[in-house]
Amino acid sequence: MNESRPRVAILGGTGKEGPGLALRWAYAGYSIIIGSRQLEKAQTVAQELNRQLGVNSIQGMENSAAARLADICVLTVVQAAHQQALEGLKQDLQGKVMVDATARVDFSDPRPPSPPAAARYAQNLLGPGVRVVAAFQNVPAHALKKNLGGAIDTDVLVCSDDLPAAEEIIHLAKAAGMRAYFAGGLDNAVVVEGLTSILISLNKHYGTRTASIEITGVQTPLSQAK
Amino acid sequence: MNESRPRVAILGGTGKEGPGLALRWAYAGYSIIIGSRQLEKAQTVAQELNRQLGVNSIQGMENSAAARLADICVLTVVQAAHQQALEGLKQDLQGKVMVDATARVDFSDPRPPSPPAAARYAQNLLGPGVRVVAAFQNVPAHALKKNLGGAIDTDVLVCSDDLPAAEEIIHLAKAAGMRAYFAGGLDNAVVVEGLTSILISLNKHYGTRTASIEITGVQTPLSQAK
Repeated sequence: MNESRPRVAILGGTGKEGPGLALRWAYAGYSIIIGSRQLEKAQTVAQELNRQLGVNSIQGMENSAAARLADICVLTVVQAAHQQALEGLKQDLQGKVMVDATARVDFSDPRPPSPPAAARYAQNLLGPGVRVVAAFQNVPAHALKKNLGGAIDTDVLVCSDDLPAAEEIIHLAKAAGMRAYFAGGLDNAVVVEGLTSILISLNKHYGTRTASIEITGVQTPLSQAK
Repeated sequence: MNESRPRVAILGGTGKEGPGLALRWAYAGYSIIIGSRQLEKAQTVAQELNRQLGVNSIQGMENSAAARLADICVLTVVQAAHQQALEGLKQDLQGKVMVDATARVDFSDPRPPSPPAAARYAQNLLGPGVRVVAAFQNVPAHALKKNLGGAIDTDVLVCSDDLPAAEEIIHLAKAAGMRAYFAGGLDNAVVVEGLTSILISLNKHYGTRTASIEITGVQTPLSQAK
């Protein structure tokens, strides 16, 4: 374990996306906290992930305790729980980098969402004391859990009004085997949310489940180098 | 010239995007009509393009005459002229495939647009007698004009509620050297418009002008084969 690495909490981390992210970051040597509204559920998932990896670096806590203890909080709650989670964690998140992975797209009836982006809404609700970054909205959950040290064929578009915070998350994405790019301010995140709707349509039309977006024509040591 | 090929009009075709598309399609053997509000301007641009290619297959006409004569009309007017162009051409476009290339993003202050997509707005305004397809919103104009027979490193996301019409445009995109995918219904086109905002942000941050989107994880003879 590298002590200079930030401690990462995954809030609402017992759902579809959280465990896969936790596995990849723990595999890369990060200290991870799985947060949940229910302490027991968080601890059960954390123990199961530790067992899978043969490590002891994943803890389970209630969301608010997890947020307070972490440097970076990744919010992976479902769309319907987004507002309530933010309101409940507003104080705990002050001073933190808060990564919003919410895509307001319904899988059974996918339509692009309207501005403001979920992450812009979060920034407005949380206030300027929280460094909000939008990322990981389109990462396929099934791809996270296999070949943990390997690359995932997806590009993460990282949006924030706080460039240093965005760069921390670009590094975090790379640590999990994903290419990542700075894709502008928080308002741009509504497009990244909407890409979910495009990817669902592509998968449906072409009979795949692996449609993904890749950025080309941009040369950057920051995002290409491992 | 292959007489079975549809005749393509590029409405508002004297701007940034139109001439490059015209060159590529004419190079591929299509009959092209450059449309403009001003007949003389259309004819001047058409003559110049014929001269560049050493062909005689590009005509210049007023937009309404161009629309009436064509099978497929590609609307490449600037955002501010979109509504007026549609209203003026509503009768002329009946029965045609109308490709809307509008991205409602201001280059000097790029922000993702709200739903409805420009192409959905067009479909509503033109009525069910026009087969509206959204495509070519993000194609870099400078890339179109060079190496005419070669591939362009960009993926075209084609959205329509009319799948056969979308497939015609996927073929047309391929004829111009672009990969193209069916990316869902017209509502999804708002995301493709918004990608313009992402690409501008990427180019600004990384000091490039060639940022582009590529689809991965989808295997399709329709879009990959030349």
